[in-house]
Amino acid sequence: MTRGTFISFEGGEGAGKSTQIRRLAERLKAEGADVVLTREPGGSQGGEQIRELALNGSADRWSPVTEALLMYAARRDHIERVIRPALDRGAVVLCDRFADSTRAYQGAGGEAPILLIKALEEHVLGGTTPDLTLIFDMPVETGLARAAARGGEARFESKGLEFHKRLAEAFLEIARREPERCVVIEADDTIEAVGADVWRAVSERLGL
Amino acid sequence: MTRGTFISFEGGEGAGKSTQIRRLAERLKAEGADVVLTREPGGSQGGEQIRELALNGSADRWSPVTEALLMYAARRDHIERVIRPALDRGAVVLCDRFADSTRAYQGAGGEAPILLIKALEEHVLGGTTPDLTLIFDMPVETGLARAAARGGEARFESKGLEFHKRLAEAFLEIARREPERCVVIEADDTIEAVGADVWRAVSERLGL
Repeated sequence: MTRGTFISFEGGEGAGKSTQIRRLAERLKAEGADVVLTREPGGSQGGEQIRELALNGSADRWSPVTEALLMYAARRDHIERVIRPALDRGAVVLCDRFADSTRAYQGAGGEAPILLIKALEEHVLGGTTPDLTLIFDMPVETGLARAAARGGEARFESKGLEFHKRLAEAFLEIARREPERCVVIEADDTIEAVGADVWRAVSERLGL
Repeated sequence: MTRGTFISFEGGEGAGKSTQIRRLAERLKAEGADVVLTREPGGSQGGEQIRELALNGSADRWSPVTEALLMYAARRDHIERVIRPALDRGAVVLCDRFADSTRAYQGAGGEAPILLIKALEEHVLGGTTPDLTLIFDMPVETGLARAAARGGEARFESKGLEFHKRLAEAFLEIARREPERCVVIEADDTIEAVGADVWRAVSERLGL
């Protein structure tokens, strides 16, 4: 049974994930890989519709629990219609955010109960979990300033420094607890330097 | 601590729930009760937006698991913003469909895993469960013909007779397993006769 490789990119706002994913996709394509570049929340037609609902509006439009459920509804659709078919045909799937973001944003940041989040991971992911997760780490103030300069989804960016510090800590905690899956990328550097770290982690995992 | 009474109405399509809920609301108001008449999916501003997403489109727009997660996202918003505040002030909440519908439609009908549905009940309802559930039972063919004549949400009505028979059986099974909470209402009768059965069940529970 052929199976592709699933790589997720995680971290707080403004850490440069999207730029690095695009660069990585180009490089993998140049190596001849079948690359699927996707994102969460969203990534499938239905997932993007749920994303609209989840991310727009005021910061308290949804409670953390409702938000976690919306994220997992979008995730399930994305898994069924995009990620799993791509992995089944042997593609490399690069996903901008995945389940760790729900742990960090709605769990650690928003205080949705960890038991709920674990139950969702267990019963909704259906074993579709990343082979490799790159966690982009960056001083919170720097990341927020970069995100504000670029514009973007205001709901989370407006939640304040404390929230974003809890986020950053939650991502690092995930990396500490799952060292086989996670690699921390120091993201406060030039695009080229960060790109070199990303390539090292990915090419090792893919055996390139 | 004052607490109201939470009554849910369940059953397949075309069983006459909505008509009976309106009649019951009028009668309870005439008795001087603070009555909140609401419905699922929906019932709150956010819940209604999720309802739009969940119920429109083709029958296979969402898988049963995605659908169950959307229903629970809508339910959580509805509980937080409408049901719990109403119960806290001592109101009688009449809700057209609640968690049993997810068990029947997405669980028994759609085959979402029962462990997922139980985990959602445990971690999302937060103890907000009905004091009384009236399960409207009606021959499946009759209910579908009535629903078709009235028009309405096509997604579930288009799912075929087998699906709706599994639904009806699932609702009766819930009633058998939780006899303290559930009363089966034989709904294939005149509005007045069914209304009398509904009033008997509710007035007993409320001690009227």
